[in-house]
Amino acid sequence: MSRPNKILAITGGVGGAKLALGLAKVLDPEQVIFAVNVGDDFSHLGLHISPDIDSLTYALAEENNQELGWGRSGETWQFIETLGSLGGDDWFRLGDKDMALHMRRSGLLGDGATLTEATAEITQRMGIAHAVIPISDDPIRTVVQSEQGDLAFQHYFVRERCQPAVSGFRFDGIANAALNPALATYLADCDGIIICPSNPFVSVAPVVEVAGFLAAAAHIPTIAVSPIVAGTAIKGPAAKMMQELNIPSSALAVAEHYQDKYPGLLDGFVIDESDAGSIEQFTLPTIAAPSIMVSLADRMALAERCLAFFDEL
Amino acid sequence: MSRPNKILAITGGVGGAKLALGLAKVLDPEQVIFAVNVGDDFSHLGLHISPDIDSLTYALAEENNQELGWGRSGETWQFIETLGSLGGDDWFRLGDKDMALHMRRSGLLGDGATLTEATAEITQRMGIAHAVIPISDDPIRTVVQSEQGDLAFQHYFVRERCQPAVSGFRFDGIANAALNPALATYLADCDGIIICPSNPFVSVAPVVEVAGFLAAAAHIPTIAVSPIVAGTAIKGPAAKMMQELNIPSSALAVAEHYQDKYPGLLDGFVIDESDAGSIEQFTLPTIAAPSIMVSLADRMALAERCLAFFDEL
Repeated sequence: MSRPNKILAITGGVGGAKLALGLAKVLDPEQVIFAVNVGDDFSHLGLHISPDIDSLTYALAEENNQELGWGRSGETWQFIETLGSLGGDDWFRLGDKDMALHMRRSGLLGDGATLTEATAEITQRMGIAHAVIPISDDPIRTVVQSEQGDLAFQHYFVRERCQPAVSGFRFDGIANAALNPALATYLADCDGIIICPSNPFVSVAPVVEVAGFLAAAAHIPTIAVSPIVAGTAIKGPAAKMMQELNIPSSALAVAEHYQDKYPGLLDGFVIDESDAGSIEQFTLPTIAAPSIMVSLADRMALAERCLAFFDEL
Repeated sequence: MSRPNKILAITGGVGGAKLALGLAKVLDPEQVIFAVNVGDDFSHLGLHISPDIDSLTYALAEENNQELGWGRSGETWQFIETLGSLGGDDWFRLGDKDMALHMRRSGLLGDGATLTEATAEITQRMGIAHAVIPISDDPIRTVVQSEQGDLAFQHYFVRERCQPAVSGFRFDGIANAALNPALATYLADCDGIIICPSNPFVSVAPVVEVAGFLAAAAHIPTIAVSPIVAGTAIKGPAAKMMQELNIPSSALAVAEHYQDKYPGLLDGFVIDESDAGSIEQFTLPTIAAPSIMVSLADRMALAERCLAFFDEL
């Protein structure tokens, strides 16, 4: 198998977006597009908010807030502070600049644009040449089944700070969600899929479980990068979720989860160099590489390593 | 006639709000309430914006932006600048803090509150003890008839910067707008009405022309403060409008306009000291007083002078 010419990269939030930026830096817009989770989307203050699309957008525009680890760079908080002082909902910390993106998207959607069209307008305005494609233009809404009952994803993730123990997940709307036609077309001659280091349960699942995706991907070499490094998640609740689901929080368990849940999807797996000692336990072709991406060079190096991995499959 | 115990003050935008603050400083909440124009209200970016209510709110909270002459103090512009960069509508300059007020109001209205209830919640949160009452909870929308055709008020006022020559005004919805019940009740034992120095055509008209107001006011001593000083408006397009309507832009013409349009409404008129030379021409009881309110002391002094004027009628 040779290095692919047309890559589809699947991303969720901030972690996946790091590798996505690396891929965008080493591949032209004709060589890679991004399929993004919309299960985290929600309606708040009358706005349509798409956290994963936005994390990727800010990353690709190199406008991500590196101090916070989320949101937009150069952000200020006058809106949300004032809203709180007036008795409004301020648990979702909307920055002043970030608000503008949500308002623009909501306006475009209100004018009849699809989420794909709205995303294209916004990413192009931000100078992004690569295509950021929602997995579906239809609503998919992740529900976290927890000890506090069912929680809308952002209520679990932001309002409750991932504290309730989880028992499972549900993706409302996914049964009726059409695979984005732009992705269906792209998959027809795509020759490599990279699952970026995103949460398997709440970022990757609501992407690959959209009807038609797994069938289209079956003949395409697919690799995944572990979001779990040395037993913990670089960012986000993946490791905590695995413990609560009685799964060991290890890179190996992530690979086994993908193999059990989506047989035949993965052709290779990428773990962090710190987990290299466990590499013999993997039943998939697996490589170890530096996957804690601090610098832009780290992002690009991991992207190159993933691309080279296809040659070795 | 003695100094009144219960004052209703009619206000429009920033000019009227100056005297309103003076009145609020010298009278208790039981002694004065504010009836505010809603003809400038509009829906923008999905938000309900009430510019005159907000000008008064910011003035009474002493949070008005004194550098700009409009909007909220300590304002920043990250939202609107970013919205413009994303291709969104940025002609209406929404500050980051100001946005929060519009979002909060819109949320309350969306939850079923009346504009009166939403305004009460917001003004109380901002520490305002006095009642700020929209003239009606029903929509009244000022349309400016101009050489460019009919323009929604904010399109005329902000987007077109008052440049099109006007030929008249229309208040869409006013025929079906109910006088705010809180005002109807208050007017029953109100013993003085002060029309603050606001634009007679687009601020005062859509207040006093709400059905039932003039009848309720007929038996109440009423004075107006001229928004025209030395032939010009301190702020806003009143003088320019008068020229375009072939009315001399003078305090005398304002008084005559009120007398012609609303016979019997006014019992007295207040002009600026700089116009004192014309005082003999007025057919109403008229006093001259310093009405260019720069300091808080100026606002309070004019308020006291207005209250004392009732004794002299």
